[in-house]
Amino acid sequence: MKTRAAVAWQAGHPLTIEEVDLAAPKAGEVLVEVKATGICHTDYYTLSGADPEGLFPAILGHEGAGVVVDTGPGVKSLQLGDHVIPLYTPECRECKFCLSRKTNLCQAIRSTQGRGLMPDETSRFSLDGKPILHYMGTSTFSNYIVVPEIALAKIRKDAPFDKVCYIGCGVTTGIGAVVFTAKVEAGAHIAVFGLGGIGLNVIQGAKMVGADKIIGIDINPERATMAREFGMTHFLNPNEVDNIVDAIVQLTGGGVDFSFECIGNTQIMRQALECTHKGWGRSIIIGVAEAGAEISTRPFQLVTGRKWEGSAFGGARGRTDVPKIVDWYMEGKIKIDPLITHTLKLEEINEGFQLMKAGKSIRSVVVY
Amino acid sequence: MKTRAAVAWQAGHPLTIEEVDLAAPKAGEVLVEVKATGICHTDYYTLSGADPEGLFPAILGHEGAGVVVDTGPGVKSLQLGDHVIPLYTPECRECKFCLSRKTNLCQAIRSTQGRGLMPDETSRFSLDGKPILHYMGTSTFSNYIVVPEIALAKIRKDAPFDKVCYIGCGVTTGIGAVVFTAKVEAGAHIAVFGLGGIGLNVIQGAKMVGADKIIGIDINPERATMAREFGMTHFLNPNEVDNIVDAIVQLTGGGVDFSFECIGNTQIMRQALECTHKGWGRSIIIGVAEAGAEISTRPFQLVTGRKWEGSAFGGARGRTDVPKIVDWYMEGKIKIDPLITHTLKLEEINEGFQLMKAGKSIRSVVVY
Repeated sequence: MKTRAAVAWQAGHPLTIEEVDLAAPKAGEVLVEVKATGICHTDYYTLSGADPEGLFPAILGHEGAGVVVDTGPGVKSLQLGDHVIPLYTPECRECKFCLSRKTNLCQAIRSTQGRGLMPDETSRFSLDGKPILHYMGTSTFSNYIVVPEIALAKIRKDAPFDKVCYIGCGVTTGIGAVVFTAKVEAGAHIAVFGLGGIGLNVIQGAKMVGADKIIGIDINPERATMAREFGMTHFLNPNEVDNIVDAIVQLTGGGVDFSFECIGNTQIMRQALECTHKGWGRSIIIGVAEAGAEISTRPFQLVTGRKWEGSAFGGARGRTDVPKIVDWYMEGKIKIDPLITHTLKLEEINEGFQLMKAGKSIRSVVVY
Repeated sequence: MKTRAAVAWQAGHPLTIEEVDLAAPKAGEVLVEVKATGICHTDYYTLSGADPEGLFPAILGHEGAGVVVDTGPGVKSLQLGDHVIPLYTPECRECKFCLSRKTNLCQAIRSTQGRGLMPDETSRFSLDGKPILHYMGTSTFSNYIVVPEIALAKIRKDAPFDKVCYIGCGVTTGIGAVVFTAKVEAGAHIAVFGLGGIGLNVIQGAKMVGADKIIGIDINPERATMAREFGMTHFLNPNEVDNIVDAIVQLTGGGVDFSFECIGNTQIMRQALECTHKGWGRSIIIGVAEAGAEISTRPFQLVTGRKWEGSAFGGARGRTDVPKIVDWYMEGKIKIDPLITHTLKLEEINEGFQLMKAGKSIRSVVVY
C-alpha cells in the first residue's frame, strides 16, 4: 500500500512529505493507522546529525497513537479497530530482561530496531523500490506503519489520539521515572532539574503520588508558572543563588529524597546527585547527555548512602504500564492538554522542529 | 582510673604504650574492658597522616570486643558483665537517620565523634593532665574505654573476643554490604574486586545467601586460594585478560547482578560499575578512595539500568545487626578464624602495622 510520510533523507536537512510504499505486515506484525504523533527532542537530535547512531534515509517519529487496521499471521493480542500506542521500548514478556522483573528494557528486537529494520532484518518502507529505514521501531511520522505486536500498547478507545500520543514518550518518561523507577513515596521531598516537558511530567507524577516539597530548578524563570500549575511547590533559579546544591540542602533540612535530571547536562547530573540526602538520597538521570560526556563525583557521596541511577522510558513496561497512564489521563489524575502547545498538519512538520529549536513549544503534535 | 593504651602522638610515628588516665563514664556512657582489637587499614590510614580528618594525639583502634565493667547514670540497655562490640557507627534509634529505616548511618553523635570527643565535647582520656583524643568513638587500642551506650552492641557471652572483635569492622563491612546493603538474592552472579579481608568477607557473605557465580578479581593470584575456600567460584586476574569488564560480561552472559569494589581505586570502581548487567546491575563501592579522587562514567551506563551505590559499615545497624553476625559466626555460617593471621600483645602493636604495610597479614589482632 501507499502512505503519506515525512522522510528524513539526510542529517541537517528538512523532512520532505512523500507517498511511500508500505509492505503488508508479516508474521507477528501489525499495520497501524497513525492518527497523531508528537515531535520529540530525540527526533530533533537524530535529524540534527548529532546522534552517532542516526541512520538515513529514515522515517522518524516515535510518539504516536493510532488504530489497528490489519494484522499479520499469528497476531493474537490485537485485532482490527484496537486503539494503540507504538512502543520504542517493546515488551515481549519472554526475554531475559522482561522475565527479570527488574527492568523495562526488553531486548527482544533491540539489534534490528537499532539498525532501522523489522525483526526479519528488512524494512517495510520503500520509495521507487529503494528501502527507507524505520526509526526506533515506530516511525510515527508516517500515516501508516507496520510494527511488531510486542511493540504496541492497547489503550482505551475513548482516549483522544492528539493528546495521548504524548504518552508514547514524554509523559511516560517523566511520570514513569517517578512512579516506576524511583517509586517516590508520599511525603518525600524531590528536586527536578529542568522544567521542560519532561520536568513538568516529573512534577505532576510527584504530585500524583503525594510528594511534599517539589522543588523545580531552571535558569528560565518564565517556566515556573506552568510548573507551579503542575504541582511545583518551590522554585530555584541557579543564577540567583550562590550554590544550588547548598540551597536545596538548606530548603529541605538535609537534601531531597529523590532528584531527577531532565536536561542532559553532566554537570547538572552531579548537582542532582549531591543535593540528595545523606543516607538514602537517590538521583535519577533522565536527560540524554551529548555523546562522550561523562559524569563524575567523589565516591564518598555514594559511600555515605546516595544512589546514582537512571531511567529510560520511565521504567515503564510498555504494554503493561502505558495503558495505565492513559487511564490516569482520562481520569484526570494527570494533565496533558496544556502541554500540547501546537497542533500541526503533516505538511507543517518542519515548523514543529523550528518551534522546538527556538524553545517556543512544549510539545507540538502532528494530526493526520 | 589508669589504663594501658597505645597512643598515637603524631602522624607517621609509631604508637607508644602508656598508662593513661581514664575518667569515669558520665550519663549515658559505659566503661568497657577491651579484651581484643583488630588493627584495620583505617587505623593505618589515619596514623600515616593521609587522612585529612586525622587528629592527634589520639588513641586509635575501632575493631574491638570486651566486657562492660561500669555504667554511667541512665544507662538501661547494658549491665556489668555484658559482652559488647564497640560501634564506630552507633545506633541511637531516635535520630532522623535511624528513624528513616533507609540507612544505618546514625548521626546522633557524629559531630563530636569526628572531633575525637565524647558527646559532652570533652575527652575521657588524659595523660599528665593533658587530654588525649578518642578515635572513631571507640579507641580500642586502650585496654579500658568509655563509650556511649548507643555505640555498644550486646553480644552472646560464649563468643571468643579474639575472633569476634573483627566483626567490629571488617567482617561486618564485607558481609553486611552483601546482606544489608545489596540484599543479594540466591542465584545471583556477583563480582568482587580485591581479595583482601573485605573482599573475602564479601565472598563468604555471597556464599551464605546462595549466590551462584562468585567471581573474584585480583592482580595477586596467590590470593585466589583462600578466596576459593571462602566461596569464590571463578578467579580473574586483570593482568591476564585483555579487558576485565569484557571478561566478566562474557563469563556471566551479560554482566553480574552485583559488584563490590573492595580496594578504594576510582578506576576500578568504574570497572565494577560497567561489568554489571544492563537493566538491573548494581555496583556497591566499599573501598575508601584517596582524598580528592573522583569516579566517572558515561551516564548511559545508568540510564540503561545500572545503579551506582556505596556501603558504610556494611549497611549494618550496629546494635541490631552486629549481634546477628556474631551468631552467624558461632553457628558456623561464616568463618573468621582463618582470617586472623596474627595475634599480638599490645606491646607488639607496631609490628601489626608493619605486617599490614608489607601485605603479610589479613588481620592482626591484639589480645589484652
